[in-house]
Amino acid sequence: MFFSFDGVDGAGKSTQIARFHQWLEERGRTVVTCRDPGSTPLGEKIREILLERVDLAMHRRAEMLLFMAARAQLVEEVIRPALAAGEVVVSDRYLLANIVYQAHAGGLDADLVRQVGAAAIAGVRPDMTFLLDIDPAVAAQRIGRAPDRMEAYGLDYLRQVREGFLVEARARPEEIFVIDAQRDPDAIQTDIRALAQRRLTP
Amino acid sequence: MFFSFDGVDGAGKSTQIARFHQWLEERGRTVVTCRDPGSTPLGEKIREILLERVDLAMHRRAEMLLFMAARAQLVEEVIRPALAAGEVVVSDRYLLANIVYQAHAGGLDADLVRQVGAAAIAGVRPDMTFLLDIDPAVAAQRIGRAPDRMEAYGLDYLRQVREGFLVEARARPEEIFVIDAQRDPDAIQTDIRALAQRRLTP
Repeated sequence: MFFSFDGVDGAGKSTQIARFHQWLEERGRTVVTCRDPGSTPLGEKIREILLERVDLAMHRRAEMLLFMAARAQLVEEVIRPALAAGEVVVSDRYLLANIVYQAHAGGLDADLVRQVGAAAIAGVRPDMTFLLDIDPAVAAQRIGRAPDRMEAYGLDYLRQVREGFLVEARARPEEIFVIDAQRDPDAIQTDIRALAQRRLTP
Repeated sequence: MFFSFDGVDGAGKSTQIARFHQWLEERGRTVVTCRDPGSTPLGEKIREILLERVDLAMHRRAEMLLFMAARAQLVEEVIRPALAAGEVVVSDRYLLANIVYQAHAGGLDADLVRQVGAAAIAGVRPDMTFLLDIDPAVAAQRIGRAPDRMEAYGLDYLRQVREGFLVEARARPEEIFVIDAQRDPDAIQTDIRALAQRRLTP
């Protein structure tokens, strides 16, 4: 099983992923948690360029392709081998984020991003994506650090991101599950576990 | 006009490009020379990862996507603005190299590389590509430095690269011009100028 979590920064992904990971392990699963971009030496290098090197001029298409390069490496170095070994993979973001941040909110053609995405992931898709949905203004208050490249685009951009996530979720309700992330963390985790429970093979 | 030069390392691209650049300037053209990957701050950073960081595990698809990211930035930051300003662009490598190194010789599907390539370049294609064709064993002797990531794949790989270039040239004879690069540099340059002359608007 391959689970991914998505949503704007500050939606509480890290907290929910850590608790979900723990729950899966308690149920006897071997769990590999990763972040996209990242979780490979190459991916972390790309992540640094994408999110921290705000001094580098970066066209949307170049940005999108860098995310894809990190993801291709993540798939082949981490996710595909883990799934082949029968392990559960939990990823902090995945292709959906690219479609939303670079296409819905960023102006690239969504089909183009999907097409390049298909080349990057080579068939490795999440079984379930938990979309932690939150007002970006509320999420921004939760982030206690300087904004990275994506956040630096500002609140209007993040509102388009939120809407883009919801559009994608409506289009693929069997894959993307919208979770109200403005609630108490316990209530959020309860929903996630209930949804995952139905899909996990015994 | 947009010219690109390609061929295995050691084929003499740098020398021929420098002389071609000079010739174009003497004819009154404003010339922008670039290298792909590279020639933008982002592209040079990616180039360093691609060619020098041989310590980083890199899947072929990730490698291909990194080349594409650098190229997208090169197109938007350098090539497209130069062409729009009526300047002549001369690039050391371009998309063709990706198709040959990663697909023909590297095992990726050529149509997949072409498809991602189309997304990366967004319509900016060379008017003419000069393929400096040379036996890779001869070329290797000309290179007076340690092999980079591509060269480190070895001579058998580079022979497939050479054959891949020739296959592409046969498929697109109106775009890719094969130049015998085992001859005297003057003879090579004479051929390049004669071919370019026919295409340059007065």
